[in-house]
Amino acid sequence: MKESFTGKVYLVGAGPGDPELLTVKARALLDRADVVLHDDLVSPEIISLILPQTEIVNVGKRCGLKKITQNEINGQMIALAKRGLQVVRLKSGDPAIFGRLAEETDALEAARIPFEVVPGITAGISAAASLRVSLTDRRSSSRVVIVTGHPATDKEKQDKIEWRDLVRPESTLVIYMPGQNFSHLREELVAAGLASDVPAVLVSQASTPRQQQHCTTVGEVHKLQSVPAPAILLIGRSLERACQRSSVENLSLALDDADLVICSK
Amino acid sequence: MKESFTGKVYLVGAGPGDPELLTVKARALLDRADVVLHDDLVSPEIISLILPQTEIVNVGKRCGLKKITQNEINGQMIALAKRGLQVVRLKSGDPAIFGRLAEETDALEAARIPFEVVPGITAGISAAASLRVSLTDRRSSSRVVIVTGHPATDKEKQDKIEWRDLVRPESTLVIYMPGQNFSHLREELVAAGLASDVPAVLVSQASTPRQQQHCTTVGEVHKLQSVPAPAILLIGRSLERACQRSSVENLSLALDDADLVICSK
Repeated sequence: MKESFTGKVYLVGAGPGDPELLTVKARALLDRADVVLHDDLVSPEIISLILPQTEIVNVGKRCGLKKITQNEINGQMIALAKRGLQVVRLKSGDPAIFGRLAEETDALEAARIPFEVVPGITAGISAAASLRVSLTDRRSSSRVVIVTGHPATDKEKQDKIEWRDLVRPESTLVIYMPGQNFSHLREELVAAGLASDVPAVLVSQASTPRQQQHCTTVGEVHKLQSVPAPAILLIGRSLERACQRSSVENLSLALDDADLVICSK
Repeated sequence: MKESFTGKVYLVGAGPGDPELLTVKARALLDRADVVLHDDLVSPEIISLILPQTEIVNVGKRCGLKKITQNEINGQMIALAKRGLQVVRLKSGDPAIFGRLAEETDALEAARIPFEVVPGITAGISAAASLRVSLTDRRSSSRVVIVTGHPATDKEKQDKIEWRDLVRPESTLVIYMPGQNFSHLREELVAAGLASDVPAVLVSQASTPRQQQHCTTVGEVHKLQSVPAPAILLIGRSLERACQRSSVENLSLALDDADLVICSK
């Protein structure tokens, strides 16, 4: 009999990490869920909101020794929904931006499981908000190009990313999973014609207490150290204000240190 | 004395329109605000949530007979904060995507008013969620290009948008404010090398009860009728699933109509 009451799968964006940046809908769905299947990158602050009676499954492909395949995740969602359960498939950021959403919805559709997609604040947009900058600016930046530092399509695994196509002075480049090879990235960006003084800001774990950001320029981007995921590298003239603020803050920190030295004499 | 207690301005993304797609933080800030200054495109459902004791000011630049300038909006925010008030500057979607955020933060910074940016679900991401598609797909689409159909920078008012740079088979193109001249757009997209069978979906007022979407292809995009704002035009192979679903639904509607005719005999 249980098989006849099919449940539903909600593919929900968890946002960048701060529980306050969940949508009202995501928050309510978490409270109503029978099971939550979540990625590794969903923040511990959000996981801790889930009620004790709700089953929590980490299906993060990085966690533990056993590698969970996409097919296994699809199979779990389908099996749980067929048991009549309300399943929240919780993804860091927004499900439609580098979230492997299409593969999961294809599987759900093939199995005739009802599903809904609930958008979330994607990491790039959260990074911009935390820096208090706009990704577009009527005065300098008319477009936003969202790309991943890792090959995202199967085709790109053979080809390299065509930075030349992506890079324009009037674009803000938002690089998800920028990786660790910033020397290579610098070469690509400069070869693609980006001026070496264009600002670049690396933001890690935006919106959480662990957030860090590092302001630099395209010409110095190779000096960046790798940071904890989720990380976003923002590049473009629209970042200028963030870097100006950052240098003022660093200067004032340096002055504070100087005062401290004087006082301790 | 009042002047010494400076208030604060929160530049808040209202999301696409559904009050459930506000962030938890935006919802709380609306409840705590002394004044809300909002754009025209913030949905009536969200405006109706604002408490009766909160002053509501529509600073939408399209509304009424008098055109409110950006300088006047900046001046209002600053004056209210200087009175010690908690000001929510509520913007449709996300403030960092075509929201004129930088101009407002520049003015606040110059006036030394404390401010914070609270991200929101931007219309393009909400449109994708409502269509239950991904903007990226490991199998076909590795990047998202967010652009506006109208000239966004002052420079672009002289130049035309370089569609040739934007259009790539592996990109999903997300066009904000696509305007009404879809014939011109079709010419540009085809001239830029996009295949005429690439799916295009026009979404109006995503996430609200007034949402409408129209599936077509690049080759037929000139036949689209203009729709109420906020409107988003999504173009790319990643939209294929949305258009397949739409044709199945239309077919089943047509069959329903056929049944109706048969039954009424």
